[in-house]
Amino acid sequence: MTRKPLDTGADLRELVERLYPLCRSITGDGVRATLEILGEHIPLDVHEVPTGTQVLDWTVPQEWNIRDAWVKDPAGRKVVDFRESNLHVVGYSVPVAETMPLAALREHLHTLPEQPSLVPYRTSYYSPTWGFCLAQDTLDALPDGDYEVRIESTLDDGHLTYAEHVVPGEVTDEVLVSCHTCHPSLANDNLAGIAVAAALAQRLAAGKPHFTYRFLFMPGTIGAITWLARNTERLGKVKAGVVLACAGDPGSLTYKRSRRGDAEIDKVLEFVLSGKPHKILDFSPYGYDERQFCSPGFNLGVGSLTRTPYAGYPEYHTSADNLDFVSTEAMEDTLATLGEAFSVLDRNRRYVNLSPYGEPQLGKRGLYDSLGGRSDAKAAQMAMLWVLNLSDGEHSLLDVAQRSGLPFDSVVAAAHALQGAGLLKE
Amino acid sequence: MTRKPLDTGADLRELVERLYPLCRSITGDGVRATLEILGEHIPLDVHEVPTGTQVLDWTVPQEWNIRDAWVKDPAGRKVVDFRESNLHVVGYSVPVAETMPLAALREHLHTLPEQPSLVPYRTSYYSPTWGFCLAQDTLDALPDGDYEVRIESTLDDGHLTYAEHVVPGEVTDEVLVSCHTCHPSLANDNLAGIAVAAALAQRLAAGKPHFTYRFLFMPGTIGAITWLARNTERLGKVKAGVVLACAGDPGSLTYKRSRRGDAEIDKVLEFVLSGKPHKILDFSPYGYDERQFCSPGFNLGVGSLTRTPYAGYPEYHTSADNLDFVSTEAMEDTLATLGEAFSVLDRNRRYVNLSPYGEPQLGKRGLYDSLGGRSDAKAAQMAMLWVLNLSDGEHSLLDVAQRSGLPFDSVVAAAHALQGAGLLKE
Amino acid sequence: MTRKPLDTGADLRELVERLYPLCRSITGDGVRATLEILGEHIPLDVHEVPTGTQVLDWTVPQEWNIRDAWVKDPAGRKVVDFRESNLHVVGYSVPVAETMPLAALREHLHTLPEQPSLVPYRTSYYSPTWGFCLAQDTLDALPDGDYEVRIESTLDDGHLTYAEHVVPGEVTDEVLVSCHTCHPSLANDNLAGIAVAAALAQRLAAGKPHFTYRFLFMPGTIGAITWLARNTERLGKVKAGVVLACAGDPGSLTYKRSRRGDAEIDKVLEFVLSGKPHKILDFSPYGYDERQFCSPGFNLGVGSLTRTPYAGYPEYHTSADNLDFVSTEAMEDTLATLGEAFSVLDRNRRYVNLSPYGEPQLGKRGLYDSLGGRSDAKAAQMAMLWVLNLSDGEHSLLDVAQRSGLPFDSVVAAAHALQGAGLLKE
Repeated sequence: MTRKPLDTGADLRELVERLYPLCRSITGDGVRATLEILGEHIPLDVHEVPTGTQVLDWTVPQEWNIRDAWVKDPAGRKVVDFRESNLHVVGYSVPVAETMPLAALREHLHTLPEQPSLVPYRTSYYSPTWGFCLAQDTLDALPDGDYEVRIESTLDDGHLTYAEHVVPGEVTDEVLVSCHTCHPSLANDNLAGIAVAAALAQRLAAGKPHFTYRFLFMPGTIGAITWLARNTERLGKVKAGVVLACAGDPGSLTYKRSRRGDAEIDKVLEFVLSGKPHKILDFSPYGYDERQFCSPGFNLGVGSLTRTPYAGYPEYHTSADNLDFVSTEAMEDTLATLGEAFSVLDRNRRYVNLSPYGEPQLGKRGLYDSLGGRSDAKAAQMAMLWVLNLSDGEHSLLDVAQRSGLPFDSVVAAAHALQGAGLLKE
Repeated sequence: MTRKPLDTGADLRELVERLYPLCRSITGDGVRATLEILGEHIPLDVHEVPTGTQVLDWTVPQEWNIRDAWVKDPAGRKVVDFRESNLHVVGYSVPVAETMPLAALREHLHTLPEQPSLVPYRTSYYSPTWGFCLAQDTLDALPDGDYEVRIESTLDDGHLTYAEHVVPGEVTDEVLVSCHTCHPSLANDNLAGIAVAAALAQRLAAGKPHFTYRFLFMPGTIGAITWLARNTERLGKVKAGVVLACAGDPGSLTYKRSRRGDAEIDKVLEFVLSGKPHKILDFSPYGYDERQFCSPGFNLGVGSLTRTPYAGYPEYHTSADNLDFVSTEAMEDTLATLGEAFSVLDRNRRYVNLSPYGEPQLGKRGLYDSLGGRSDAKAAQMAMLWVLNLSDGEHSLLDVAQRSGLPFDSVVAAAHALQGAGLLKE
Repeated sequence: MTRKPLDTGADLRELVERLYPLCRSITGDGVRATLEILGEHIPLDVHEVPTGTQVLDWTVPQEWNIRDAWVKDPAGRKVVDFRESNLHVVGYSVPVAETMPLAALREHLHTLPEQPSLVPYRTSYYSPTWGFCLAQDTLDALPDGDYEVRIESTLDDGHLTYAEHVVPGEVTDEVLVSCHTCHPSLANDNLAGIAVAAALAQRLAAGKPHFTYRFLFMPGTIGAITWLARNTERLGKVKAGVVLACAGDPGSLTYKRSRRGDAEIDKVLEFVLSGKPHKILDFSPYGYDERQFCSPGFNLGVGSLTRTPYAGYPEYHTSADNLDFVSTEAMEDTLATLGEAFSVLDRNRRYVNLSPYGEPQLGKRGLYDSLGGRSDAKAAQMAMLWVLNLSDGEHSLLDVAQRSGLPFDSVVAAAHALQGAGLLKE
């Protein structure tokens, strides 16, 4: 089966636009439809985990689906309508078909008084209730009287759905990329992240990577908990990982360190970001699924890459996180940067200098200028000297690049030249 | 026996005023009188150690007492008079009753030429001599002629006197508070420290602390040496300590780290002081009895809390360190700060997360908001997430507070809530 | 045999001036002549290592000697003449006697287009070729036509020559001082270093040092490789070392750390330099023979002391690095500083406090003022308290000086006084 390429910014945007209208949640058909579209670009291994399955300290909940929902005012006009935006219904609302006065209805209405024109995003996964979200301006304009409310949803035993995509590498050590798929019509959070991840998977596959890259598309929290519960024995293979979210807003990139703080992924991201506007945050146990990967029992080397981080922009979890909020350039920049980071990670090795006593004579191996006395030592020679000097089994090529100030590519080229001359081994 | 409360700043001041006139030294009845007054506020276990007792590298010296001392000028007027101020006599002066010309007397007179109106404080504990201290202005006004000098002191085998007060805790691990009691009429150095320590002892007793708090009132150097020599086997129980001195001058608080530099008491004091004007000093082997507690053989986690430190103010060791120099507000501030520090120290524990793989589901235990999507995570929930994430046996609650930026009280409350839910153990 | 003293700056300058005209290279009679002159000042153990000897990854090359060399223009005038400056011939040029048009000759001519009046220094040790170095201005003035070129050099099996000078100490642990001797008429690089090293050797011998000091005068790279190959079993004795070069230019002193970065020599040089204008550089595997001493297999505690470092000044490796470029004051300053550093290194010991529980009573040993209460503690007493407090086997006297801020000499004096009183042992 031929997969659709995600080669250009326009391809990324088109994917985001197709996914935007779907009503996703932590379970349900909106997630399945999302994965089906994603599967047109990269092959997915879709997992269905039954309601009631015990996963770590949690239990897979019932599956939620929704057909329609609305509120009609005393005049019979739909003043809140799920078909206009799926944000209007509190996620996991139980079904309801009632008529009630505005005063009683108000207890089920959620607004943002300080952003009166925006509709908030709200859920209630583990406490059965129902509710609508609407603009404060809309609420303020509602006349008194009796309102008809209808939510045509179902909460039944079913499944939690998540998907994996694997780019096989030369080794079975794995790098994780995790994206949450549980938010409905919110573009930056996290359709941009899903699109960037899919594009990155395509690029990695084209490049025949060293590590195996595993992409995870799953609902936040319960999805990560479920995957971790079902993959405990695999975790020893996880060398690094990135939780990718909010990949398309106009802010600069932000990397949040793993709980370890000095994991290889932390060093790689800090190195790659150092040349551009960015922010580095220490780990905190709040945000996206790094919370789960970095729980103290797992403590994986998994950080989080976003542009503006969690809850850091006014459009966050509102109807303003829409298609206009996400920029093609921002998604391309996120993609390029994470691609560069994985390119470094993928080639970052430790070598041992096989001729560690004094410098080996590079000249007789054709690796050194024959004319001495010049003060402009070439970068390639400097890179070889640095690699030889630091290849004691304790320094990686990234360490060499950081210590020397030389480009990572030059350091890798030097290592390969030296390895080719029999002076280094991995 | 009912003890007098030290509840208000006025109580502290009254105690300092009562102690001020007494002629203290490293031994003698002035120390006993001091401890008797202190005993009206907190019960004291008074120890009398005989002259000649070997204590570590030292020997308890003879006991010194003094009834009177004066210098009469050629006209028979008392120009220096012990009854006006006990600073006028060099501490441990041997008895003398002589008449001598001013030129000969001068060798026994101590002044401060650069602070000509002040009387210095001088001692000669281990080299038998006698002397008077007076203002340079007084000395300059003395006419030539024969002077009658009289010191009615005794140096006899006797005892070194020190006292302990213990506030029992839930555990026998101890926190030391040490105050020197050997200075005569010097108010800041160290009557303010003695008064603050006694008030703190009363407050701790009211609060039923976790640790046992041991207050030591003893002469500088030889007192600490004596206590250490007699309590060597107890030192394994000493978890932390503070040498308290100069607690009432108008300067801001200064904490001098223990020799270890990163002992728990160091972290606690730095944490508590960080919110107010303060100074942190590295350990140095000069100052008060932290010199002894932090000698390399003991190396206890004992720092020193003062306002303006040792020798750091012009009134230091002069007659200007009087009742006017000590402020009620400063003593109250020292008391409140050290009380806060001990409140942190006393509750600072290490926990182990019993559900360390992924986050435990706090919602089903009533510890988490059921409505999702809001960006204003409550501090109480954040505190629980932080405690869970860092409770790996390596981080204390103080570490959690510092890493998270959350108030220590919130972190403690979160730990108790999680422990109550069976998610943590100590 | 009486050796000529190098007591004054004038002596240093005279030695540099005598060595300047000699045509040195990595082998040959110029090196031998240099060592012969040096031997008038300090006794040298001269080693001759045969061509073809395998040394680590290298082979001792053929010996190069040169009698004359010139280029004659079409009119028969010598336009480039070895007898004017030995820089005019590329080091290790093979013999040549040809006539060729200017265009063909150009491929063998080296200039500095951006410094058109200067002659560059060039070599080709391991790739047989020939060439001349000249000013760009000279080259630009050459008319077209046929040029006669002559290089009367020999490349034959012979020897590599290097010398050692040892100042014996109380112990056989060694400190290395290494100077490269392979540069022809370049004054700062490295005749100034050779002269300073010889003067330092004389001073050390006069002072009966604790360590054994080994001075190495040898060609760069291949010389250090050769010495290391022949002294592998001695390296366990090498406690510290300094590669000394560029010791006479007007720039301030620069210390480049050893690869370890925190070796004792690094701490000593940073301490001694801290009081004057200076620069500290991290190790890099480029520069002088620290490259070899700090290769990962040896990883010796050897740093490099220069004034302006390698390739850091416009006169570097040009005819402008002449006798005018080197200042007597700069050489004296380098000598004084390195002498001070070795004075610290030589006396830097670790002691153990034999009375570590509380302070020992210094007063009864005559080491402490008997009059108490004064706030101006004497530096000598402070030094004793610091030495006692930190003498736990983990801190050196240099550590004590750095922690206390006291002069190193005071700290050493305190340690000797305490050792004399039986309170310390090494």
